[in-house]
Amino acid sequence: MSAPKKVVLAYSGGLDTSIILKWLQTEYGCEVVTFTADLGQGEELEPARKKAEMLGIKPENIYIEDVREEFVRDFVFPMFRANAQYEGLYLLGTSIARPLISKRLVEIAKETGADAVAHGATGKGNDQVRFELAAYALNPDIKVIAPWREWDLTSRTRLIDFAEKNQIPIAKDKRGEAPFSVDANLLHTSSEGKVLEDPAEQAPDYVFQRTVHPEDAPDTPEYIEIGFEKGDPVSINGVAMSPATILTELNEYGRKHGIGRLDLVEGRFVGMKSRGIYETPGGTILLEAHRGIESITMDRGAMHLKDQLMPQYAELIYNGFWYSPEREMLQAAIDLSQEHVTGTVRVKLYKGLASTVGRWSDHSLYSEEHVTFEEDAGAYDQKDAAGFIQLQALRLKLIAVRNKRVGK
Amino acid sequence: MSAPKKVVLAYSGGLDTSIILKWLQTEYGCEVVTFTADLGQGEELEPARKKAEMLGIKPENIYIEDVREEFVRDFVFPMFRANAQYEGLYLLGTSIARPLISKRLVEIAKETGADAVAHGATGKGNDQVRFELAAYALNPDIKVIAPWREWDLTSRTRLIDFAEKNQIPIAKDKRGEAPFSVDANLLHTSSEGKVLEDPAEQAPDYVFQRTVHPEDAPDTPEYIEIGFEKGDPVSINGVAMSPATILTELNEYGRKHGIGRLDLVEGRFVGMKSRGIYETPGGTILLEAHRGIESITMDRGAMHLKDQLMPQYAELIYNGFWYSPEREMLQAAIDLSQEHVTGTVRVKLYKGLASTVGRWSDHSLYSEEHVTFEEDAGAYDQKDAAGFIQLQALRLKLIAVRNKRVGK
Amino acid sequence: MSAPKKVVLAYSGGLDTSIILKWLQTEYGCEVVTFTADLGQGEELEPARKKAEMLGIKPENIYIEDVREEFVRDFVFPMFRANAQYEGLYLLGTSIARPLISKRLVEIAKETGADAVAHGATGKGNDQVRFELAAYALNPDIKVIAPWREWDLTSRTRLIDFAEKNQIPIAKDKRGEAPFSVDANLLHTSSEGKVLEDPAEQAPDYVFQRTVHPEDAPDTPEYIEIGFEKGDPVSINGVAMSPATILTELNEYGRKHGIGRLDLVEGRFVGMKSRGIYETPGGTILLEAHRGIESITMDRGAMHLKDQLMPQYAELIYNGFWYSPEREMLQAAIDLSQEHVTGTVRVKLYKGLASTVGRWSDHSLYSEEHVTFEEDAGAYDQKDAAGFIQLQALRLKLIAVRNKRVGK
Amino acid sequence: MSAPKKVVLAYSGGLDTSIILKWLQTEYGCEVVTFTADLGQGEELEPARKKAEMLGIKPENIYIEDVREEFVRDFVFPMFRANAQYEGLYLLGTSIARPLISKRLVEIAKETGADAVAHGATGKGNDQVRFELAAYALNPDIKVIAPWREWDLTSRTRLIDFAEKNQIPIAKDKRGEAPFSVDANLLHTSSEGKVLEDPAEQAPDYVFQRTVHPEDAPDTPEYIEIGFEKGDPVSINGVAMSPATILTELNEYGRKHGIGRLDLVEGRFVGMKSRGIYETPGGTILLEAHRGIESITMDRGAMHLKDQLMPQYAELIYNGFWYSPEREMLQAAIDLSQEHVTGTVRVKLYKGLASTVGRWSDHSLYSEEHVTFEEDAGAYDQKDAAGFIQLQALRLKLIAVRNKRVGK
Repeated sequence: MSAPKKVVLAYSGGLDTSIILKWLQTEYGCEVVTFTADLGQGEELEPARKKAEMLGIKPENIYIEDVREEFVRDFVFPMFRANAQYEGLYLLGTSIARPLISKRLVEIAKETGADAVAHGATGKGNDQVRFELAAYALNPDIKVIAPWREWDLTSRTRLIDFAEKNQIPIAKDKRGEAPFSVDANLLHTSSEGKVLEDPAEQAPDYVFQRTVHPEDAPDTPEYIEIGFEKGDPVSINGVAMSPATILTELNEYGRKHGIGRLDLVEGRFVGMKSRGIYETPGGTILLEAHRGIESITMDRGAMHLKDQLMPQYAELIYNGFWYSPEREMLQAAIDLSQEHVTGTVRVKLYKGLASTVGRWSDHSLYSEEHVTFEEDAGAYDQKDAAGFIQLQALRLKLIAVRNKRVGK
Repeated sequence: MSAPKKVVLAYSGGLDTSIILKWLQTEYGCEVVTFTADLGQGEELEPARKKAEMLGIKPENIYIEDVREEFVRDFVFPMFRANAQYEGLYLLGTSIARPLISKRLVEIAKETGADAVAHGATGKGNDQVRFELAAYALNPDIKVIAPWREWDLTSRTRLIDFAEKNQIPIAKDKRGEAPFSVDANLLHTSSEGKVLEDPAEQAPDYVFQRTVHPEDAPDTPEYIEIGFEKGDPVSINGVAMSPATILTELNEYGRKHGIGRLDLVEGRFVGMKSRGIYETPGGTILLEAHRGIESITMDRGAMHLKDQLMPQYAELIYNGFWYSPEREMLQAAIDLSQEHVTGTVRVKLYKGLASTVGRWSDHSLYSEEHVTFEEDAGAYDQKDAAGFIQLQALRLKLIAVRNKRVGK
Repeated sequence: MSAPKKVVLAYSGGLDTSIILKWLQTEYGCEVVTFTADLGQGEELEPARKKAEMLGIKPENIYIEDVREEFVRDFVFPMFRANAQYEGLYLLGTSIARPLISKRLVEIAKETGADAVAHGATGKGNDQVRFELAAYALNPDIKVIAPWREWDLTSRTRLIDFAEKNQIPIAKDKRGEAPFSVDANLLHTSSEGKVLEDPAEQAPDYVFQRTVHPEDAPDTPEYIEIGFEKGDPVSINGVAMSPATILTELNEYGRKHGIGRLDLVEGRFVGMKSRGIYETPGGTILLEAHRGIESITMDRGAMHLKDQLMPQYAELIYNGFWYSPEREMLQAAIDLSQEHVTGTVRVKLYKGLASTVGRWSDHSLYSEEHVTFEEDAGAYDQKDAAGFIQLQALRLKLIAVRNKRVGK
Repeated sequence: MSAPKKVVLAYSGGLDTSIILKWLQTEYGCEVVTFTADLGQGEELEPARKKAEMLGIKPENIYIEDVREEFVRDFVFPMFRANAQYEGLYLLGTSIARPLISKRLVEIAKETGADAVAHGATGKGNDQVRFELAAYALNPDIKVIAPWREWDLTSRTRLIDFAEKNQIPIAKDKRGEAPFSVDANLLHTSSEGKVLEDPAEQAPDYVFQRTVHPEDAPDTPEYIEIGFEKGDPVSINGVAMSPATILTELNEYGRKHGIGRLDLVEGRFVGMKSRGIYETPGGTILLEAHRGIESITMDRGAMHLKDQLMPQYAELIYNGFWYSPEREMLQAAIDLSQEHVTGTVRVKLYKGLASTVGRWSDHSLYSEEHVTFEEDAGAYDQKDAAGFIQLQALRLKLIAVRNKRVGK
């Protein structure tokens, strides 16, 4: 790979990406464009602008954008249509944000004539894969620079030295090692590393940043009604809201009731297992409610197919293949299944638990007439069940006859 | 089908199966053998013996058995190795008991020279299918009698009339309609019908019989440690227990903390949707803990395959295909995956929620050495990730080049 | 089910459906509408009109239609996009025609105010299921009449008697039992029953009606070039053709070279196994060519997903679930995968075998630059493979380390 | 990676692996152990011994083994139980040999105290991955040396120079570039590269080495009967044979009749597409016959599950994951399905085509009694089909009712 001439950097404004910024300038002598996105991580973005300017980035090379609506509408909601959970539990909060960041990096590279993009993910994790696969899928000629895989700043001491030598301001609490590493966006906050590295040890209370402890949550349950249209939430308690607004609201409900905490050991795409603490307050409520509305509006055949496809779909997102033809194929199938997933779900929130307690819809497939224990006025002829069972049983009978015949 | 001469009836001792018993005698003039199983439903069995005797069943034709250990060891635990959940949520508590009952019915038919078996499931539900598919798979020549599909006792009044005419004692609270229908065993209690038939309406408090309301559960969390061997739980807090004992204990923990309630609308095999309230206290804790121990002991490739197979496995059990070659094939794959699922999980129980907070094992695949944010002494070369990503990206790049070439 | 007042009958004009026609009139006293479709079965349709008139059907109640283009365009080609083969081999020639017939029956019922449809499939086969599931999916209120399941004309003698009594003309060769049963359309001819019922016995030569014996095919291979657009064939040897025309042409090529014979024992949806002889001349060439064009234009990830979904897709069509949400979900995924399946395949036809010998496309993903054994000018860095393998191997190494540690 | 001290080399005795042998000695100054396996590639092995001796390998370090029986029994046959075909067509002849070679390399390394193994696969292909994943899975501490990824002998001229400088004898026809590259074993011969690199061009006749041209095959069909036990072939025409013998015989039948040629463009695991010519004469007959015996002895549910799992199974083998827990899980499921796959298949061989024409078995599930068009003496009640269809249709009806209600 020839040296990059102009690089678009995913820039948070923090110490690490500021060091990367400077390192790109010094290592490659290249022009740097910064991209700072508001994905709902809960930090102000303007300080990043000032810091970028201070590090010599030209104003026209500083991109700061609020992408929360796009994030939720085009990434989070499509994923939730699938009820995606990686390894049965993880709601993919970090995984789903990476493709959007890469998409904007590649777009800004095109706008600014940059030939490379750069990110601050380490060489041990999944995020490098996610950033890079997305970037290459969107522009096969782009260069991707991953400083953590290249440089020799392999200890905290060296990083701090480099920062000091390069006049990068260091917040007091960044001098030492952080007790764990954090990623956050509108969907979730993840924490891993350091104090969390022994999976036998319970995560310390101070790790949780996004939700109250269930023990500290209100002693009285709260009920909310979530409206859905074609598989996506569109309202809370009858009030219509935009995608990012609705997720923000659900996050607040989840936070207050201690909902959405997960302590997980997961298998990384790069081969080892890692332990993470995830807080996905709104997403956890959303998953429960989405399953609730699907339960009355989605046909069994469609649902079972979707459930069967889900693990591969989740794996693709986890592994960074958002922009792959197979993810798009699965999405097409999943989206079609959501055509009638419209209606309302009532959810109880209490001490860490979100539980569906009622659901209704004009699109309901539930037929009280058919299921009732009462007289059903001929909706269903119980005698049909006898024929149904006989034909279902036929192959099993033929097996049994055969096995008896051959003495097994 | 010619008339049966001798029938083994799945007999609970309750009013409905007593009516069936008498109906079989009067309708077919056949000898009846009763089979009453203790599956952990929490009812005494000796009254069933007395009632059977009173209805004229010969002592040698009364089978009363405690099958709790067999139920948990050979049915519940194998199923939990799969983390089976039907339609994403249901732990299959009713479904998994049916094959065992049918197995004993067929075996007793052989012992007693009976040519038929009978059950009390209605023609609208899944249970008739489960009973009958299992029976036919185990004995293709057996006759199965399902009185609810055959007789004309189609209203409560007619049933009571029949009972009175036939001197079947009727408990006072059985004269009227029960407000909902219940099935119970060591794994779960299910409730459906009547007051539960409108899925928009929250289930009344009195429906729940097996767990305290989360709001009434202790205000302080409780922690337990569950030991696993090859995928099955074998101890609680270091005390080894038999399968049925361990599930009984977990049920008590779950009951106390209000864990394992589920309000579900599900797609029945016979075609309509129905709404059920399930309480699976111990099973819910077990699922959480099993996922916990798998997370450190099971390889990613094995786990993802298993997750992908699970929905079909759960569907097979739900639909009554326990005794089918495809369920056995999936079980063989699943069981092999559990060879190293040995170790201990620490679970927090609090107000309806069971959460893994720690897990450890001699069989762990978790390697702190590989995952650490610290220096890893060469366990992992971050530069390998660059090559890994390049080859993962190659096909995506080729797609992007092609799409650009053809103008899409 | 109340008696039907007006019935649309799938009417071939042959003896059996003429008997059904009369039986419907006499049994139910209902008005009969006939629907005779040209699906490419190779029979003239006008005789059916005369016969219907002779049996008292009003002219406005006689529907005769050429649906070959619709059949191929909307049913056969979408199915071939999936490379669908039931139980690994069967190209589903009968299965795929049934939904179209039912669709027209239901539509004609609506046009004519009929309340029922009727078909001539027996109670042992799959076709009854396919006809009826499609009909019910398209109109849940329609009545379906399946005379073979209802009447008492259960022997050849009785059928002939009924025909004679009702002045239905009987062709000489129809008096005795046919030596086997046939179904045909533009995609295939199937033969089953009677002389074919022993699966150990080779099918007699006279069973094959659609293809020459490979031994009698030309001694010289023939080469054709099939052009594809978005997964569907659009031309042969550079000449553009409509869907039905192209399949007709491929059939002629296949017939001449003895291509597309299959002797299969298959598992029917209704539970037993049956043996069929299928001739699918054009379809067999098409499958080969479609795989050929996919091989250079479709990404590996997309193809592997599609291959994995295919068996369920084929099963759905075989079982009669063409009009089901899950078939439509799979179709959406499959269709998306065909977006770039455009190009040309050269196929060799010789003595029963169709073999791809060349393929090219503007949409090709094949990159000689990448794959070449020659110098590749930096397109691919072989060192990347080392990192790729290391990370792929990591989880396997961790397993091996663990297994050694625990002594297994 | 520290320098290897003692290396076990997969050594064919040919020019390329002789150069590797010498390069290992000169580059690392390490002791070399050679392993030459008879996998049925059709070359004599003793010349390899002489050449190794001539290159200075100690007699005790020369391993020459006939592994044909093990290859067929433990690798080829288990794979054929799955009817494995990669991308729908490829019988995995190269892929399945690699794990066995790695297994012996690792075992010999243990026996001889070697710390490394080496292979002659290039950095562009799948074989490097297969060799190395198998080696690492069997010994996580082994070093693997892949000279083609490391050295600078990147042109034919340099290779020849190196050989001449090192007194490696060069056969005359090896001085120039071979027109294509070949791999062979008892299952297949593959050819790729050079003259085959343009997938639009038909493969030249001289590429085929293992089968006669169909045009040159006998003009008269030949019939053989293959006996199976539990999914594996055990006899031909009633004569019992060992695994390797039976495959050798089938190869001869296939060769003679021009059976088993495949011209394929496939997606490599390392990301690009490549074109190969495969000849799998015996394997192609075996696949056909295995499907034939399964068709009467395997239950539909088992078969459909197996068909659905096959693509992933084939992908795992293709990608080099033979020694992975997920391949073993799938194998466990597949093997269980073969318990009754016992019986005989009659296959017609003619001009490139192998076709099942008859099959019979004591373990047959085919029931003429059930399927017959004749009177079936009550084996099957056609009226059962009505109930079967009604319940299958119920969910489709409910969908149709819903869609009509909501106006779609």
